[in-house]
Amino acid sequence: MPLPDSWSQQPASPDARYVELARQRQQVLTKPPGSLGRLEQAAITLAGLQANDRPALDRIHISVFAGDHGVCDEGISAFPQAVTAQMIANFASGGAAISVMAKELGAWLEVINLGTVEPAAALSGVLDRTIAPATANLAQTDAMTPSQLEAALSHGDEAADRARRAGAQLFIGGDMGIGNTTSAAALACALLGRDPDELVGPGTGLDARGVSHKSDVVRRAIGRIGNTREPLDILQALGGFEIAALTGAILGCAARGIPVLVDGFIVSAAALMAVHQQPRAREWLLFAHQSAEPGHKTLLQALEAEPLLELGMRLGEGSGAAVAVPLLRAACALHNGMATFEAAGVSNRSEGEAS
Amino acid sequence: MPLPDSWSQQPASPDARYVELARQRQQVLTKPPGSLGRLEQAAITLAGLQANDRPALDRIHISVFAGDHGVCDEGISAFPQAVTAQMIANFASGGAAISVMAKELGAWLEVINLGTVEPAAALSGVLDRTIAPATANLAQTDAMTPSQLEAALSHGDEAADRARRAGAQLFIGGDMGIGNTTSAAALACALLGRDPDELVGPGTGLDARGVSHKSDVVRRAIGRIGNTREPLDILQALGGFEIAALTGAILGCAARGIPVLVDGFIVSAAALMAVHQQPRAREWLLFAHQSAEPGHKTLLQALEAEPLLELGMRLGEGSGAAVAVPLLRAACALHNGMATFEAAGVSNRSEGEAS
Repeated sequence: MPLPDSWSQQPASPDARYVELARQRQQVLTKPPGSLGRLEQAAITLAGLQANDRPALDRIHISVFAGDHGVCDEGISAFPQAVTAQMIANFASGGAAISVMAKELGAWLEVINLGTVEPAAALSGVLDRTIAPATANLAQTDAMTPSQLEAALSHGDEAADRARRAGAQLFIGGDMGIGNTTSAAALACALLGRDPDELVGPGTGLDARGVSHKSDVVRRAIGRIGNTREPLDILQALGGFEIAALTGAILGCAARGIPVLVDGFIVSAAALMAVHQQPRAREWLLFAHQSAEPGHKTLLQALEAEPLLELGMRLGEGSGAAVAVPLLRAACALHNGMATFEAAGVSNRSEGEAS
Repeated sequence: MPLPDSWSQQPASPDARYVELARQRQQVLTKPPGSLGRLEQAAITLAGLQANDRPALDRIHISVFAGDHGVCDEGISAFPQAVTAQMIANFASGGAAISVMAKELGAWLEVINLGTVEPAAALSGVLDRTIAPATANLAQTDAMTPSQLEAALSHGDEAADRARRAGAQLFIGGDMGIGNTTSAAALACALLGRDPDELVGPGTGLDARGVSHKSDVVRRAIGRIGNTREPLDILQALGGFEIAALTGAILGCAARGIPVLVDGFIVSAAALMAVHQQPRAREWLLFAHQSAEPGHKTLLQALEAEPLLELGMRLGEGSGAAVAVPLLRAACALHNGMATFEAAGVSNRSEGEAS
């Protein structure tokens, strides 16, 4: 499988004309200018991304990518590896957080199984895109072969294409993979030149000793790859299947002009990878929340991102992004539905500026 | 009109049994414990407030209280006073932010007109409860007479009673009144013993000179009332009709066991007043957002409140509370809809604690 075109294709910029139209509209709605705070900018940004001065979020495409991690051999997770496959079944049967939220939002939810150690049953709503039962142990060797990486990126790009064909107005990528905060932290360390202690955290619930061990594992991994700086090489050496697929999905959405609402630590690591490969992809990204995983703050800073929410969430699956969708919908509803000063016969401040 | 019973009646506490049931449920849902962050606590709190281990927010009652302020004579607002009546019409015709959000949420919206300088037309969805065209100028004299205050508190209490009769699962109070950040700041200064410079801000958009003048006006007002410490006396001296009505509505909801989602600066000042009068009312309050109005932070600290959102909103009308409702709905949906580890056949961490 070759690399998807979106890997090497520079995305277009959002349409500045619609940004300007939306900005003008915000100035004449019946409210003090700026009084809707970040909801005003969200509507303006979405107008540019959707090339529509009345942005909308009726059709939302959620793709959750799942895969297992060889680095679990190092004992870096609080949960057993079997949980990855079990959670795929839970996504499909509607019991997982992202399943509940997708239903709540009326969003499309698909799960892409990239390979689990415990076999996952064939289930409706789950696309079997098995690459291997798991990545190799990134602490000892490259996590993926070149062809495995190409496959993972392509599976992500294909999800973006399904979103495009469905007319999605917003894409959310989610992750499931026991051990994936280790891979995400390693990727971020390599991309940003940071020390593992800055980016490794408790994940699903390690204690201090566990975090320290996990940090050592990441240090071994980034020591192993030395001065490798090419995003493709870093991703092959340290990525998980689902993180590579998320990278492919983000680049695929940017290439196709689909806005992406970025979830937490794992998806932000994929976004960082995507932006290192194609800096202009950044313009297609909105940021949902700051995770409780401590390293997420550093990733968000590197992405110059100010997420909408900070609720202490740290679940993954795209759940934090899903929870933020109603804020963007409120931004659109207010932008589209509020009356202008003129239409409502309300005096604007210029008519009565006080001392 | 006598004072409503809820003014002097101590509210009951929320039901601890349902808090405990909800807490137990959160521990066995298919996610690492705590990984939904503040959404977990929100569901647990709502379970106690609604005496239901499966809390729900299908029926939301929004009451926007509007009234004019005599203190506008001091030139403390960026907008002309006529806007209060104009915005009442805008609420009714669906063009205001809170109207758009109420429709988006499927919430009940009513507007209670307590008195405007410019006559407000009789409109569907607006309850005429005119007390006077405006309060008196609080910088020079008491804002209300005793009977005006009793009327305002009663109109708020009656809104809580309408919410109860409608089976509301959540109450949102909103405010409209040009000049009301001056009244709210004055009330908070008197209740908390703070200097006006700590609590006076730009409101709808004063510049630095305007803020300084507004601070002087508040200083005159709190100097005028001296050591008055009784909440009722402070409210009569410094309150707006809508702030007094909001205080009555909050106490009325607490007395009737209806959870209240507190909006921004104005409603928080009313909440502070309510809690000074009946400390146990605090248990019935949830906090939506931190406003961009600088003094709101101090009010939230005094209320020991950690709001869900900080989006730089500063519009009033209950708009910030309305924007936060979907977060509480997400909390309920996740709490009620997620599978347990046992039902989903997912391994819990205790079965595979890693090193």
